[in-house]
Parts: sequence; C-alpha cells; structure tokens
Amino acid sequence: MRGINKGLLTASLVRTPITCEVPISGSAATLTVALMTLAVATTRDNGTQSIQYLPFTLIGAQAKNLVDRIAKLPEGPVVLVGTYALEQDRWDDKASGDPRSRLDAKMLHVEIADGPFSFRTDRKGNYILEGGMNSITVGGNTTAEPTVRYAPNGDKIVEVGVALNEVYQKAGQRAEKVTYVRVTAWREQADILEALPKGSPLIVDGALNYENWKDDDGNQRSTLKVEAHRIVVVAKPGAALTPPAHVTPPAIPDNAATASKIPDVASPDQAPEEEDLPF
Amino acid sequence: MRGINKGLLTASLVRTPITCEVPISGSAATLTVALMTLAVATTRDNGTQSIQYLPFTLIGAQAKNLVDRIAKLPEGPVVLVGTYALEQDRWDDKASGDPRSRLDAKMLHVEIADGPFSFRTDRKGNYILEGGMNSITVGGNTTAEPTVRYAPNGDKIVEVGVALNEVYQKAGQRAEKVTYVRVTAWREQADILEALPKGSPLIVDGALNYENWKDDDGNQRSTLKVEAHRIVVVAKPGAALTPPAHVTPPAIPDNAATASKIPDVASPDQAPEEEDLPF
Repeated sequence: MRGINKGLLTASLVRTPITCEVPISGSAATLTVALMTLAVATTRDNGTQSIQYLPFTLIGAQAKNLVDRIAKLPEGPVVLVGTYALEQDRWDDKASGDPRSRLDAKMLHVEIADGPFSFRTDRKGNYILEGGMNSITVGGNTTAEPTVRYAPNGDKIVEVGVALNEVYQKAGQRAEKVTYVRVTAWREQADILEALPKGSPLIVDGALNYENWKDDDGNQRSTLKVEAHRIVVVAKPGAALTPPAHVTPPAIPDNAATASKIPDVASPDQAPEEEDLPF
Repeated sequence: MRGINKGLLTASLVRTPITCEVPISGSAATLTVALMTLAVATTRDNGTQSIQYLPFTLIGAQAKNLVDRIAKLPEGPVVLVGTYALEQDRWDDKASGDPRSRLDAKMLHVEIADGPFSFRTDRKGNYILEGGMNSITVGGNTTAEPTVRYAPNGDKIVEVGVALNEVYQKAGQRAEKVTYVRVTAWREQADILEALPKGSPLIVDGALNYENWKDDDGNQRSTLKVEAHRIVVVAKPGAALTPPAHVTPPAIPDNAATASKIPDVASPDQAPEEEDLPF
C-alpha cells in the first residue's frame, strides 16, 4: 500500500542545536543542517510514563532561521512544536564500501512554542517537557514475520519492520522512495502485530522512540522506532473481512425525553435524523 | 505562520457511498466524487465519550476503486482508515450571486480496514465503530477574538476561527490556499484559547466534529469543526517566551542500583549518558 509517514512533536530542546554546512555536490554552495535533541515526557493510555530524548534534523533556510532565533532567546527552556517525517539516509562506508543507512526524523515545519509549560529536569539539568506531544502515523507493509521478546516484567513485545512506499513530486516529476522503520507493540497491540504474515499492509498510530544499546562487538548502536499505540490492519483487495468481534445494540434510555433536551451532545442511544446525516 | 492541516480517521461507513460524476470545465471528461458518512465512537482523555457522524469526500480514481471494492463486499459493517485534509469549497450562489463556501474533509489516502472490530448500533441500525481514530492537527493564525459560551452543565466552551495558510505545488508551480476552520475548546484548553488575541499563531491537535443546527430562519445548517484536545501557542518572532509554570527537579531514587538493572526503560530519575544523547 501507499506509504503514510507523518509525525507531530512538542518537546524541549536539550541543548543548543548543532549546525553543519554540508557541501552540495557540483556546486560551491552549502546546505545548512541543524541537529537537535528534543526531550518529552508523555503519559500512555494505560497510565505509564514515557520519557524520550529524540534526534531531529532540520534542513535549509528553516534551519538557519530557527537557530538564529534560538540564539537570541534569554537563558531558559525552549519548546519546539512541529511536524516531521522519517527518512532513510543511505551511503557507502568509505573504508569497506559496504552500503549503510540510518533512519532520520526530518522536521518539515517547526515553530518555537510559547508556554506556560511545565518541565522536569534530569540529573544533568536538562529540561524535559511535561505532557508534550509525541505522535507519529506510519503506513506500509511488513517486511518480515514479527519477532517476539519479553520485558523483565513479563510483558510481551512484538517487533516488525515496515516499508513505507511514498510517492512524491521532485522537480515536477513523479518520484518514489522507500523508508524502512521498525514498529514495536505491547499488550493488545502486540497480539495484533504478532498475527500478521510478512507483507501485511497496516497503519500504525504511535510515538517515536529512540533506542540505544551496545552490539555484540561492543559498539554503541542506536535507532529510531515507532511504539504502536493503535494498529489498524488494512484489508488486501479481494480478501474477505473479519466478522465483527462485538456489536452493542442501542440501549433503551431510562427517560427518552431527557436525552432530547440536550440536542447538542451526541448520545449512544440517539441516532441522527435523516436530514442531519451529511450523506 | 505556515498552515498545518492533516487528519487521520478510522471509522465505519454509515451507508453505501454516493458517487457523482462532476463535469470538468472545458473538457468532455468527468471527475468521480464519492460522498461518505463515517461514524466513530472515541473516548476523550477525561473519560467522556464522543460519537461523530462525519462527512468525507474522495475524488478521482481512488473514489472509483473504493466504491467498486465496497460494492463487492458481503453484507456487514465496513471500516475505512485514511488520512484527510480540510478544504474550503467556494462558489457563487446561482440565484443571488453571493459568494458561498463550505468546509469539506477530503480524503487523501483511504483503505478498507480489517478487524476484528467492535461496533455499537444506533436506533436506525447504523454501525458505529467503537474505539476508532478521530484525530486532526491544524496550525494557523486566529482570525478574530475568541467567543465564549457555556454548556448546559456549566462547562465553558471557547471558539475561534483559524486560517490555515498552505503552500503547495500545482503543476510544478508554487500555489497558495487558505482554509478557514473553527476550533472549539473545553476546560483547560478553553482557558488557553480564550487568552489569545486575534492573529495568534497556534497548533491544535484534536478531533473532527460535525455540528448541525437550525439557523434563525429555520434553515438546517451544518459545519465541520475541530474540537481541541491540545493547543500549543506559537511564539511570535522577537517576542519573549512565557517563563516555565513549573519545574520538577529529578527525584533521588530509593535504590539507584535497581534503576540501572533495567537499562531499556527510561526512568524520570535517570539522564542518558553523554554518549547516548543523539546530538
């Protein structure tokens, strides 16, 4: 299926952005790239907390403008709000010639947010925005059978790769790109993900996570992943749909007259009149 | 500020989509437009339920394909999942010549979802998807001072118009469009919205609502609105930022050794080591 790849973030800057001037091949000009770490504390639907330190890149004139504006702000926490997309950077390793890739979160549109915000600080004095936004939607096809592992508390964690096949316009021409992203799921969402054979189309609404670990050779490794909050499995053309798990008939209200006194609040016991349905 | 305008929906079809063949001016060809009402029940962060019957349009080959696929499905509920944007349709009234406009939700990418889903039915037997997704992000500038009204239970409801100024590519050329949308806010979000003077830039994460009412002349009126779940006020260039409302210092863990045994779960008492921070 056609890829979906869009995130929304409200989080605090952990430190001053790093700016790089990257040479543009075949030109004397350079491209400004800003590298930022943003921190956000959010509460999941089940009440648990997630604290993420997330890497973002911002490119071009937007990067220059943002960094200039941040430099003029007085001392104190800075909150950014913006949209982003995941993108695979691909290159060949200079020593070995092996192809390498890295998943980046590229800001599409970013603004400085104005509070009043609440923060927590970590042991190093970094500001972490309380109750920010960390949401991302990705859609694509699974690239393998899901893998299953267990957290120390026994929770099942299912993980799978998803390929986002996006079509976009490049200088007026139709162009395609594929972004590979790993999706992790816990609890009910883990059961949904575990059941999917390779190639299954799905849409995931979740949060961006940054994981880092030491690999078997002792190298520091890290990657961005999507933690699934809601997975919607997409039907394959021609396949039968799964029958409903449960259908709740309308309740009979204790006093039907009461409901009709509050016409602007939709009630499960009410159905809109024919003329009120849009189509 | 530059507009943001993107929604995500998982909801059930209330009835068979209506398809229209719209003549393309200056051509013998027609454009397929599908009109659909989708129903979804969601639970807000504060535990209250929202049931929405929402109108969507889908245009072109996607519309034709979707309607054909739906026609081939056996009897039963159909769940769609997709992304959409709000768009203002503008025309001149044929009788009076007055300019008219209507806010539409245009599907950008839609798929048939596969369950197992749970539904409730309303009094008319329509299927309403339980626990679907109804989320939309809009960003723009307020077009007026906010208005305040009160719900029957005394809750304050603040409403304001927001102009989304979007830039897009049309046949390789830079084009602009403005979409006007009304944003409503309750409780804490109402207080944030009420404080904003006309022209304030903001980003709203919320749900799409469909309101209908009778106007003073007895005409049936309806419109799409965005119910704000989270409002982020954007700082104006050069303006000072509001100081933090609250800063929580890191807690001293009862037993610091315990925390370090679970290295893959971020704790509020931990800060990542320097080499673990991306930038």
